[in-house]
Amino acid sequence: MICFNNDYSEGAHPAILQALAAENLLQNPGYGMDAHCAAAAAKIRELACCPKADVHFLVGGTPCNLISLTAFLRPHQAAIAAQTGHIAVHESGSIEAAGHKVCTIDAPQGKLTGELVRRVAAEHTDEHMVQPKLVFVSDSTELGTIYTKAELTELRRVCDELGLYLYLDGARLASALTCAENDLTLADLAQLTDAFYLGGTKNGMLMGEALVITNDALKADFRYIMKQRGGMLAKGWLIGLQFETLLENGLYFENARHANAMSARLRGGLAAAGCRFVAESPTNQIFPILPRAVQEALAKEFGFELWGAGDEAFQPVRLVCSWATKQEDVDAFLCRLGEVMAG
Amino acid sequence: MICFNNDYSEGAHPAILQALAAENLLQNPGYGMDAHCAAAAAKIRELACCPKADVHFLVGGTPCNLISLTAFLRPHQAAIAAQTGHIAVHESGSIEAAGHKVCTIDAPQGKLTGELVRRVAAEHTDEHMVQPKLVFVSDSTELGTIYTKAELTELRRVCDELGLYLYLDGARLASALTCAENDLTLADLAQLTDAFYLGGTKNGMLMGEALVITNDALKADFRYIMKQRGGMLAKGWLIGLQFETLLENGLYFENARHANAMSARLRGGLAAAGCRFVAESPTNQIFPILPRAVQEALAKEFGFELWGAGDEAFQPVRLVCSWATKQEDVDAFLCRLGEVMAG
Amino acid sequence: MICFNNDYSEGAHPAILQALAAENLLQNPGYGMDAHCAAAAAKIRELACCPKADVHFLVGGTPCNLISLTAFLRPHQAAIAAQTGHIAVHESGSIEAAGHKVCTIDAPQGKLTGELVRRVAAEHTDEHMVQPKLVFVSDSTELGTIYTKAELTELRRVCDELGLYLYLDGARLASALTCAENDLTLADLAQLTDAFYLGGTKNGMLMGEALVITNDALKADFRYIMKQRGGMLAKGWLIGLQFETLLENGLYFENARHANAMSARLRGGLAAAGCRFVAESPTNQIFPILPRAVQEALAKEFGFELWGAGDEAFQPVRLVCSWATKQEDVDAFLCRLGEVMAG
Amino acid sequence: MICFNNDYSEGAHPAILQALAAENLLQNPGYGMDAHCAAAAAKIRELACCPKADVHFLVGGTPCNLISLTAFLRPHQAAIAAQTGHIAVHESGSIEAAGHKVCTIDAPQGKLTGELVRRVAAEHTDEHMVQPKLVFVSDSTELGTIYTKAELTELRRVCDELGLYLYLDGARLASALTCAENDLTLADLAQLTDAFYLGGTKNGMLMGEALVITNDALKADFRYIMKQRGGMLAKGWLIGLQFETLLENGLYFENARHANAMSARLRGGLAAAGCRFVAESPTNQIFPILPRAVQEALAKEFGFELWGAGDEAFQPVRLVCSWATKQEDVDAFLCRLGEVMAG
Repeated sequence: MICFNNDYSEGAHPAILQALAAENLLQNPGYGMDAHCAAAAAKIRELACCPKADVHFLVGGTPCNLISLTAFLRPHQAAIAAQTGHIAVHESGSIEAAGHKVCTIDAPQGKLTGELVRRVAAEHTDEHMVQPKLVFVSDSTELGTIYTKAELTELRRVCDELGLYLYLDGARLASALTCAENDLTLADLAQLTDAFYLGGTKNGMLMGEALVITNDALKADFRYIMKQRGGMLAKGWLIGLQFETLLENGLYFENARHANAMSARLRGGLAAAGCRFVAESPTNQIFPILPRAVQEALAKEFGFELWGAGDEAFQPVRLVCSWATKQEDVDAFLCRLGEVMAG
Repeated sequence: MICFNNDYSEGAHPAILQALAAENLLQNPGYGMDAHCAAAAAKIRELACCPKADVHFLVGGTPCNLISLTAFLRPHQAAIAAQTGHIAVHESGSIEAAGHKVCTIDAPQGKLTGELVRRVAAEHTDEHMVQPKLVFVSDSTELGTIYTKAELTELRRVCDELGLYLYLDGARLASALTCAENDLTLADLAQLTDAFYLGGTKNGMLMGEALVITNDALKADFRYIMKQRGGMLAKGWLIGLQFETLLENGLYFENARHANAMSARLRGGLAAAGCRFVAESPTNQIFPILPRAVQEALAKEFGFELWGAGDEAFQPVRLVCSWATKQEDVDAFLCRLGEVMAG
Repeated sequence: MICFNNDYSEGAHPAILQALAAENLLQNPGYGMDAHCAAAAAKIRELACCPKADVHFLVGGTPCNLISLTAFLRPHQAAIAAQTGHIAVHESGSIEAAGHKVCTIDAPQGKLTGELVRRVAAEHTDEHMVQPKLVFVSDSTELGTIYTKAELTELRRVCDELGLYLYLDGARLASALTCAENDLTLADLAQLTDAFYLGGTKNGMLMGEALVITNDALKADFRYIMKQRGGMLAKGWLIGLQFETLLENGLYFENARHANAMSARLRGGLAAAGCRFVAESPTNQIFPILPRAVQEALAKEFGFELWGAGDEAFQPVRLVCSWATKQEDVDAFLCRLGEVMAG
Repeated sequence: MICFNNDYSEGAHPAILQALAAENLLQNPGYGMDAHCAAAAAKIRELACCPKADVHFLVGGTPCNLISLTAFLRPHQAAIAAQTGHIAVHESGSIEAAGHKVCTIDAPQGKLTGELVRRVAAEHTDEHMVQPKLVFVSDSTELGTIYTKAELTELRRVCDELGLYLYLDGARLASALTCAENDLTLADLAQLTDAFYLGGTKNGMLMGEALVITNDALKADFRYIMKQRGGMLAKGWLIGLQFETLLENGLYFENARHANAMSARLRGGLAAAGCRFVAESPTNQIFPILPRAVQEALAKEFGFELWGAGDEAFQPVRLVCSWATKQEDVDAFLCRLGEVMAG
């Protein structure tokens, strides 16, 4: 069965497996104190024009988010997130387990705005409530949408005004940064956020995310929290090596461009077939609303996730392409779609 | 520089890299719900004669310990550990961060006994103190020593008597089970403990540990806690595949036997040179007490950890061998030792 | 200035001060292990027809809620509450600080229904989300409304169906149980909930709440959690003695009846003057929507809380009466209201 | 039965009951924002010569300790305490429940020294261990001993050198400051510690402790944490009023002087009868080592706590006097002691 369930079904870009094989019997220091992590961090600082940033390598997105918020927030402080935000829904209460409330607000297209942040902040007036302190956004979002430079700049302005940190979850950052509509750069992110991460797991690495902390006030003792919360890999060099490999020759962005291209092809085919979409996503996740019979027929041959419960007539679904998605599989899906819609 | 610092300096056994390469472009379900995890779990259940056990795959030892104790203990309950226990010293307070006290007691050779457990339990008499509920042991221990079947059986007996869980950290379990002095089997562990794990990171895997929960009362909803604490790898199949590979042909134990053999060779050479040891370790970690000048001379050419502060005349050190340690490197060390001691 | 800000502005019913004075120099065991706590607990068990219930005395509502949920829930489990619920808004994230998410839903009149609970539960489908496990309701609610026996019975039915606990915050329970519209008894509460508490702080005691746990599965080791979270008063007998005093002669309910009568008088006067209300509250809190000019004029002479931001024309406010509210103060308020509205 | 079990068996000094009665029907703002708390805080600042200190009123010692450490420490930071320290033994793991390890060390006479602190700090070298950040001492200690000005000054010096906070638990501070051997003043405490508290519960108040934070870096948002952890009393003015009453006419110290005098009388009588003591306590707790038969005979008529298990011949006990202890009761004890020892 061909699956569009997610972008972490396959292993890693072949260049990574080659790099691992080459390095395999050499001895590296543990816990990310090795030359590969140092080189990957240096490369990231260079690409993001933030020579003083701290870069840490973590195993996955949930540990990255929970360890960051654990390190950044005092016990009474809360995060602000879109109601659809990953930490608000799909991390099993990891932020609450770390002691912090996630204040959510309905955010059109999954995107927070300065105005929405201001509204949440305004509801919290004294010590009988939590103190919102950090704005959590994702790029791309849970709905595959992206932030423009103007939008992120406005969020930064409101955060500065209200004394909030701005944190960006970049599990699918490469897809966001390489899509046609994007006008943000890594350097913009480093300048506009207090911390953000570059996702690896969903962009052709076995595992791994690279957290970039640019706000000096958030840097101290981060490695203590990483270790304490189980987020410091013994063979940390594995993550450093993978980022080094992907970033060296632009493979990191090439992987994402491929995933985007495959999604665009899917999206085009679905639109041509008359489908509407839950959100206007230019990235590697798309959310077509399929006639129920179509969805059921396709589900027999292709893997994908249902998105919400739908109604009698229609069922929204999520289709995700990855660095490894084959064009022939996309075409097979669209071909079958055509047949099914034709009835 | 040849390093005996630890057993996680190298990558993975070549068979693992081959298996990864073969699987790399296939699509696997996420989060450990794949066929490789299922097969590896089945193999572990078979080897440990515990057909009803739950098996979970985690990224490393610290997440394994902290997630287990988080899942097993109520908020007022505490663990009992040797003063040298990993959770008591080297996990940055991860158990306390999860809300639980670790009650420690000085344990000769790093090993808890029924009597020591009883003593800690007896000190905790009412609700103004924590309630010890889980005994934490490692095999091999932090000092490289191992538990005998009689010792573990006695611990089980005391745990039953006092209503305590028995949890065994098996980061270096393969080394323990394959050393000459060992009389425990995986089946014994499954029968005598409530939960234990088979370590992979320190025995030739890129990363990964396999937690085995045999006590039905501790099984419910474990995956929720795994996810919540950041311990559920997106590409969980990577860990399943690695255990599958190592367990299939006995490589898991072969790796450890090699590490033990290399350590035994080191130990023999050191003893022959007149060195004493901090503990009588039959496994892949040894703790010779070197004359200070010898230690300093060796440190110029070989990597190893200092063990405590030592005194003017002597410095204890830790030497660790791994599945990948080369006999020629061991011999180089011993040769240089001879030269220095002859000095 | 006459204040209608809350029901905890004054000290305690004079009978309590007398009882304290009489007991003052006698020696009582600490931490609630005394005869007064025992007698008060026995009286509560008798009144609520739950001879096997555990009764614990705590200092205030927030500690009562946070200690209960800490004791009752496993780390991945969450509470379901109305969006206006006290734990969701006004306890500074105490439940999240204890590690648990509060899943909120917009609840008309501040009251959860079986249907609303079902809806929240249905959104939580697997281990990537929290597991709702406890339904949190208040009687009276944050809006002064009350649950009927039919409504609470329906909630119980849905909780049983879904495997949820039902917890009732009774900070203002006496006011709810003694208002004209009420058809619930203490015995109903003991039968329909897993745990609930009788509030003292807001009903004429210096401080103190009495938690009643009827579900056997939730009883174990509760005192450990009380102590651990700072909720076990050294002179616990002070709370026992106060409950003993108020419950002995029906003063507990008499206090509430008085507060309700004063609120009803206020409500009647406000309605007669043409005011609408945010909610239909039959208890000791009422929420009139005042013309802004009226609110501003009254605020010069009377204390009360604003309820939300209002708009240009109108400002909702909260008026609370207590066991100690004087009828002459109510009449003074209504008199001034009349003058102001007359312009 | 006459009890020397503790110093919180009785209610409150009669002056407090009078003040409560006088204030009872007046309306006070909630949560400690009232005039009595303000006045008591001002008085404490004056007595301790720390005009800029923040003063907070909490219900008891455990909430005071746990809320302070929760507010002061980051997640990876730990407290250093004597092995006998209250937070290490008798608070049911409250500090661990707040996420922090308590690093203990055997401390002669229950007193930490600069040297002991240095030793604990030196063991914690990197991010794989917790980071000790706060030194926890009590005055008087759990063994009734006290710190001299020289000793506390030395602790401060070491804390400054190592970047540690110094926190002093003053549950029995009045007894320490008023005993004959004491050379510390409130002003010294304010200058030498980062935060300390004046105990009320054990010195003639119904309940309540006054926390004084002098280090500016520890002041921010403390009330959020108080509320969140259930430590903010609705009728906070009750605590303010009590401190106001006791501090106004020196009653706070007079209470303690009486308790000390009663203990001294007991101690003298016990020493005259040939008893040895566990520690040399000049305060209101003493720890005589009684012949077992004597202890058993006395236990039939007097209440007191056993201190440890003792041996066949001897049993250490704890005798505590309070502001309310009557001289005739002390004499009755000593008289009976004489009879029993005479056999």
